[in-house]
Amino acid sequence: MNKLSEKEIAQKLEKLEGWEYVDGAIETSFEFKNFKEAFSVMTRIAFECEAQGHHPDWSNVYNSLNIRLNTHDADGVTEKDFELAHSIESIIESD
Amino acid sequence: MNKLSEKEIAQKLEKLEGWEYVDGAIETSFEFKNFKEAFSVMTRIAFECEAQGHHPDWSNVYNSLNIRLNTHDADGVTEKDFELAHSIESIIESD
Repeated sequence: MNKLSEKEIAQKLEKLEGWEYVDGAIETSFEFKNFKEAFSVMTRIAFECEAQGHHPDWSNVYNSLNIRLNTHDADGVTEKDFELAHSIESIIESD
Repeated sequence: MNKLSEKEIAQKLEKLEGWEYVDGAIETSFEFKNFKEAFSVMTRIAFECEAQGHHPDWSNVYNSLNIRLNTHDADGVTEKDFELAHSIESIIESD
């Protein structure tokens, strides 16, 4: 899995509303109604991560969720990160 | 719920191995076998948090979990944080 160039990352981010490239990872945040809603969505994302064999750097405080994606093995952002980001967006949209 | 003094916090931390007081919160980290194990434990902790009506500031990267507890309303660490910390330890020990 090859590391994407900053130009490639910028192009791919155009199709991902609310995501940005920060410190070597693509990143976004979500706010939910409360902790239960936030953790429910996290659980659905966790299953998708496990299925894709790709895992986020994420943090949660009550109703807020911050997600950062990069690929350690490639030391940057790869197609795998965008695949997972789009899956996360599908989960959020279906929520 | 009253904010505990630093002395009270230090005394209570003596009964919590692996926890320390950092930047206004009590904090610990755990490492698991893999993401699935980490998230399984997070799920059990999440149910306990919801039951106690008290929620962590926590982050996860693959098999590692970092947890910080404080009480926003009291602007510090309270008995609620120690109650949750002991519950988290019980979950970890029974894992």
